[in-house]
Amino acid sequence: MKRIFVGLSLIAATCAFVQPAMAADDLLARAKESFKAIPTTVPEIADNKVTSDKVELGKMLFMDPRLSASHLISCNTCHNVGMGGDDNLETSIGHGWAKGPRNAPTAFNAVFNIAQFWDGRAADLKAQAKGPVQAGVEMNNKPERVVETLKSMPDYVAMFAKAFPNDKDPVSFDNMARAIEAFEATLITPNSKFDQFLMGDKSALNKVEAEGLDLFMEKGCVACHAGTNFGGEGYYPFGVVEKPGSEILPEGDKGRFAVTETADDSYVFRAAPLRNIELTAPYFHSGKVWDLKQAVSIMGTSQLGEKLSEKEVESITAFLRTLTGDQPKIEYPILPKSSATTPKPLEMK
Amino acid sequence: MKRIFVGLSLIAATCAFVQPAMAADDLLARAKESFKAIPTTVPEIADNKVTSDKVELGKMLFMDPRLSASHLISCNTCHNVGMGGDDNLETSIGHGWAKGPRNAPTAFNAVFNIAQFWDGRAADLKAQAKGPVQAGVEMNNKPERVVETLKSMPDYVAMFAKAFPNDKDPVSFDNMARAIEAFEATLITPNSKFDQFLMGDKSALNKVEAEGLDLFMEKGCVACHAGTNFGGEGYYPFGVVEKPGSEILPEGDKGRFAVTETADDSYVFRAAPLRNIELTAPYFHSGKVWDLKQAVSIMGTSQLGEKLSEKEVESITAFLRTLTGDQPKIEYPILPKSSATTPKPLEMK
Repeated sequence: MKRIFVGLSLIAATCAFVQPAMAADDLLARAKESFKAIPTTVPEIADNKVTSDKVELGKMLFMDPRLSASHLISCNTCHNVGMGGDDNLETSIGHGWAKGPRNAPTAFNAVFNIAQFWDGRAADLKAQAKGPVQAGVEMNNKPERVVETLKSMPDYVAMFAKAFPNDKDPVSFDNMARAIEAFEATLITPNSKFDQFLMGDKSALNKVEAEGLDLFMEKGCVACHAGTNFGGEGYYPFGVVEKPGSEILPEGDKGRFAVTETADDSYVFRAAPLRNIELTAPYFHSGKVWDLKQAVSIMGTSQLGEKLSEKEVESITAFLRTLTGDQPKIEYPILPKSSATTPKPLEMK
Repeated sequence: MKRIFVGLSLIAATCAFVQPAMAADDLLARAKESFKAIPTTVPEIADNKVTSDKVELGKMLFMDPRLSASHLISCNTCHNVGMGGDDNLETSIGHGWAKGPRNAPTAFNAVFNIAQFWDGRAADLKAQAKGPVQAGVEMNNKPERVVETLKSMPDYVAMFAKAFPNDKDPVSFDNMARAIEAFEATLITPNSKFDQFLMGDKSALNKVEAEGLDLFMEKGCVACHAGTNFGGEGYYPFGVVEKPGSEILPEGDKGRFAVTETADDSYVFRAAPLRNIELTAPYFHSGKVWDLKQAVSIMGTSQLGEKLSEKEVESITAFLRTLTGDQPKIEYPILPKSSATTPKPLEMK
């Protein structure tokens, strides 16, 4: 009997030693089925070759407040490259101090999303880039005025010609959008702790983070938040199981319904990409939730029909914090100087 | 007779050959009496040692919109490092889309000014930095709220401790201002064509530019616009000889009178520094003049009592364009992330 007990103890001790390594192997194998690491090189865009001339021009355009009617607001105002690629506001402030209807999504890793905006109404980043420039509550400009503005500056004219060498009329609203898309393709954040884990460094996640990853997959978060971007790949109703209150899911915003006009798409949104999520509070399309733990908890009840325990929420949140990658290094561009023919700012509300 | 003629011709030819060189020597000698080149190294600040830790912190603070009540407006909003250090607006747009009373001065080379603001009401850049953060029409914040915000972010706390190693309570409104001043001391623009000329490269100015410099000194512009910064060193009435119309010199803004309450200081302003002037339109404290030639012409009549000819205005303007130096190269800082205790933005007007 004693011998048996010692034998069992030995087996137990051996298992205790072996199991974590096996568990990590298993966790890694399962993670590899659902997720991809952010690449360390700039991804290709099917119909818009990313060249360094285009990226350099796109960076200028992204930072240039003269794309807005007021000359105050640039893409970077709401997609701040120093703040995780968004503005950390519930909803953005735009022309005339107007408040936008939805939380600004991050521009970082947006190139990996299936489509752009919370409702996916823009097929890609170049289609997206044209939206805020024209939206009355954002930059409030007109395409022809933007083109007139860009054509008034010889430095921009030269850069467009270089970036679009085969175009007869390179300074166009479309090419503005293409250049911005090319720049945004460089706004990727590789090398997160999770990506290190995914690429084989099993020590990259600590115990709690690994538990969080396990829960993220086991509980079903992964059903909507998978792929390279942990989301951004499909459309799902907010409140699959239980609709959150109207303070979080305002009744007036029916999401993708406005795009497809299909009843099934009421309160349907593109699943939020979760890369760098700890940098992009507040959360949800309404921007009403500032605490990541609260957001995880709400997702549990609304999407999974499960009240996650405090410990589970802690673990999942700890895991989500491992999705923060290297932030883009960007040298602030020296913008072309205005000329006598540059349209003047329209500051009025 | 023929010999004499040939002799005179020879002398004339010799003079024609020698004179420009002599004129350039003379021009350079006279310029050296009035002007100094922008240094290529960061200037010292008497009571605020410029350290790399302080500069790095100051750059973050300069770029951080969370210094404003709304979390939308940073120092860089109105002093854009990609646009000559200002916002290229008549007067700035601030909290709630309020319009400020005066044109935003450039932050570039501001360290060389005798005092800050158009009326010199701040003795130095650290005193200046505290103004816009609190002004209702600018960032609309309160010192205690700024400190609470900064203290809520561990990365800022660590950086303040590093930048101010001898302080018991390093995260303070004063130290915020000191760090911003240290960063702003790095915003200098050496190596302009004029500075190359001043340092002995007589070919750095072309004929028209050299004529412009000559006129700038001969006509008397140099009386107010001299030194390192071509201005920023003294206070003068706008309209020494002839007051411009109220569309350019609004009656309600009495300039330095508000600071000294001395009748003599009515409509007195700090002479505008002219470095990088081609990048900082529109001009004057009212920001009402967009064309540099028009600004030069107005200065002729209002300050010198002289109607400058079109050719003179052209030459002086060509010269002023040689004051554009190398723009600062700045890597966009990755800002500390907000925490649960970071005060939320106050977006309301």
